Amino acid sequence: MPRTKVAFQGEKGAFSHAAVHELLGKNVTVVPCPQFEDVFQALDRGDVDAAVVPIENTLHGSVLENYDHLLKYGLPIVGETNVRIVHNLIAMPGVRWKDVRRVYSHPVALSQCRRFFARYPHLEKVPFYDTAGSVKMLAETRPPDAAAIASGIAAEIYGGRILRRSIEDDRRNFTRFFLLRRKEAVPRLPKSSKQIYKTSLVFSTRNVPGALFRALSVFALRDINLAKIESRPLRGRPWEYLFYVDLYGRLNEDRIANALKHLAELTDFQRVLGCYPRGA
Amino acid sequence: MPRTKVAFQGEKGAFSHAAVHELLGKNVTVVPCPQFEDVFQALDRGDVDAAVVPIENTLHGSVLENYDHLLKYGLPIVGETNVRIVHNLIAMPGVRWKDVRRVYSHPVALSQCRRFFARYPHLEKVPFYDTAGSVKMLAETRPPDAAAIASGIAAEIYGGRILRRSIEDDRRNFTRFFLLRRKEAVPRLPKSSKQIYKTSLVFSTRNVPGALFRALSVFALRDINLAKIESRPLRGRPWEYLFYVDLYGRLNEDRIANALKHLAELTDFQRVLGCYPRGA
Repeated sequence: MPRTKVAFQGEKGAFSHAAVHELLGKNVTVVPCPQFEDVFQALDRGDVDAAVVPIENTLHGSVLENYDHLLKYGLPIVGETNVRIVHNLIAMPGVRWKDVRRVYSHPVALSQCRRFFARYPHLEKVPFYDTAGSVKMLAETRPPDAAAIASGIAAEIYGGRILRRSIEDDRRNFTRFFLLRRKEAVPRLPKSSKQIYKTSLVFSTRNVPGALFRALSVFALRDINLAKIESRPLRGRPWEYLFYVDLYGRLNEDRIANALKHLAELTDFQRVLGCYPRGA
Repeated sequence: MPRTKVAFQGEKGAFSHAAVHELLGKNVTVVPCPQFEDVFQALDRGDVDAAVVPIENTLHGSVLENYDHLLKYGLPIVGETNVRIVHNLIAMPGVRWKDVRRVYSHPVALSQCRRFFARYPHLEKVPFYDTAGSVKMLAETRPPDAAAIASGIAAEIYGGRILRRSIEDDRRNFTRFFLLRRKEAVPRLPKSSKQIYKTSLVFSTRNVPGALFRALSVFALRDINLAKIESRPLRGRPWEYLFYVDLYGRLNEDRIANALKHLAELTDFQRVLGCYPRGA
């Protein structure tokens, strides 16, 4: 049986790569892509069987661009996972902790290890385009005095050694990822399940007073809980918005189906983006 | 009387500079800052009298970082304006349209003029750190075959000539800006006014089912209209959110004051960010 091919954005060893392993195991063929939209296009064209994209981070918020791509490409969400962002100081074999003078990583990762750099002021921070990419660069150029900050999986892939583990300031730094498939590959939902499910949808309200309140009432009146709401501008209609909602429930439960029928009476546009087991 | 000093992010001639002129007129001293947070800090320290920051764009959505700064610095919003993003092809005097081979600008501006570049395929797009900064660079280095894409005000400031006006694909491209002051400089609200006012606030709900719906009910039940709602992650509480709301109404109207009292019964935290006349 051929291995599942899965696209993600970034270099091998990126946090998205860790999310791929959590969602699909390690027995997959990964296809790294330069941009988020390349990931959606690869799945849309059928070059890959699945795609994994980040959607929000607990420190930085939503990855707005991917909300737009979810709507544009209509590739269904079939899973989610939350990856804790653990930053490690990684060097190539032979480079010892006391040799390290320069530390390469993405500027966001460098800024998330402020306390570490305050403690070791002799270390120079060097901004690089990617976390895993900085480990890849060390593997290729072998500088004797440099290290990088990246995921544990980046160390594994590029043959680096972890000199200092979990050097991030805030351990409550998680990124939520979606697993996407093509429409024909969406698994059938169970009739009943002990597993908690989420359903993601997007809608635009008519531009009338109280429209969002009324839209949310279709869930509140049926005791359906929302996990997240996000607004995005509606193209071509300045100062009007699309709302992306994640709610708890399975699409094939009566109360969810009824809520969506009710919502259709109140909205200009609505579309289900996927229904999937809640991530760990 | 000394001129008002006002900070904004970017080079002189940036779209934020145009927003400064719309909000405060041209008789001001502008203080350009490299980063958004520098703008907030300049006002917070009292180095300037006012600050102007973008908060959302009709194509790209919210400027998430500035929502976080509004909460962190607590500098009140006292005005807003909407600037239409008009991209012009600008060259230095002596450079004619038929001389132009390279066009410098910020990648977002280049991508917003796709149709223009499709029509003139001999023009090479050159990404630059800033729209106005690319005109400034032309003024300093005087290349004979280059132009830049930027605002009309950038042409004015750096002595450029507009070769092609309004070359953007989508004319419904607006950015909304806030005018901020220090607390002691906030103008008193009128007791009554024909001018429509907006009030901006931020709150976090208790993490219970239906919490956002109930929070919005305090406005819906009083026929108070919302212009915008935005969610941001709550630091240190993964998967919980702050909600930023812009509503129509003056803080010193009874129905608004009552709604905010009611909201306080339902929220863990709430703060008014400002009350200001609706922008043009």
